[in-house]
Amino acid sequence: MYPEGCRTYVEVEQWGQRLCGATRPGHFRGVTTIVAKLFNLVSPDVAVFGKKDAQQALLIERMARDLNFNIRIVTCPIIREADGLAMSSRNHYLSPIERQAATVLYRSLMEAKRMIEEGERDALLIRKGMEKLFAQEPVVRIDYIELVDPETLNPVGRAQDGTLIAVAAFVGSTRLIDNWSVNAQ
Amino acid sequence: MYPEGCRTYVEVEQWGQRLCGATRPGHFRGVTTIVAKLFNLVSPDVAVFGKKDAQQALLIERMARDLNFNIRIVTCPIIREADGLAMSSRNHYLSPIERQAATVLYRSLMEAKRMIEEGERDALLIRKGMEKLFAQEPVVRIDYIELVDPETLNPVGRAQDGTLIAVAAFVGSTRLIDNWSVNAQ
Repeated sequence: MYPEGCRTYVEVEQWGQRLCGATRPGHFRGVTTIVAKLFNLVSPDVAVFGKKDAQQALLIERMARDLNFNIRIVTCPIIREADGLAMSSRNHYLSPIERQAATVLYRSLMEAKRMIEEGERDALLIRKGMEKLFAQEPVVRIDYIELVDPETLNPVGRAQDGTLIAVAAFVGSTRLIDNWSVNAQ
Repeated sequence: MYPEGCRTYVEVEQWGQRLCGATRPGHFRGVTTIVAKLFNLVSPDVAVFGKKDAQQALLIERMARDLNFNIRIVTCPIIREADGLAMSSRNHYLSPIERQAATVLYRSLMEAKRMIEEGERDALLIRKGMEKLFAQEPVVRIDYIELVDPETLNPVGRAQDGTLIAVAAFVGSTRLIDNWSVNAQ
């Protein structure tokens, strides 16, 4: 896939440095570059990406539009286990104790949902409410909890329709992510 | 061509900062981005670029290969006026005096050719020989004279088959470029 001397990168400026990009420098530049290569090799009519990787799906949509790829980008919903944990190949790395604790990502999003349904809109307070649940899980360490604009990934001060609540956490040594769009799920 | 909020760039790392890129920051990133967009919009089988813009042609070849564009990139030779001046839309900006002085770019390349044919290989001495001709043209200011590897654009210490001799100069306020490949023209 990478010819000798290759040095061309496709980059969606700034958006790749936020959220998951902050702890994974260069990651999204790698993603958009390899996906651009794949698009040129396959010339698909439609490409489907999962919403669990919300930032990835957004960057690829933006790239496809900006570079005039004639491809329809479809984002498909998160599929969950019975207890709410978002499905991911990484879940297999979890020990039984970690597997149980890992549901805190989903539970914290449902806590945010509950707060918003009860009228709370302040992003800081919603985050604090979510953090309380994480504080009860010693094997889980928060990477980030963010309320962002779904179009720009800019942090928002107040939750509103469409606001993306994104969370990333290390469960033991396994990094998991999840998200929920206000009023959309 | 540029949708609202667009922020995706295609960049050939490092190569875009050399030669013409040194005095035109961001220029080649703009070129590779717009050409990638054009490729996706048109889906051509073949794309033709002029060799006068040697760095541009090289970057686009590299981009097409690195990103798996299924397009054949053809570089066509420099077309010259009767007195050797490389044809360019910019030549129309030249006053009669500047137009006459502008031939120094071609003449300096032919001086390099003569020196090499007589056995000179030292890049520094070849550049000095070229600079002597420019010194006789008060309306012309050298931007750069470089002997580079045609595959990497790295400066070379000694000329050999295939070495690209590239020159850029301001003739009055008009910036012109020209180049010659050792033993290839």
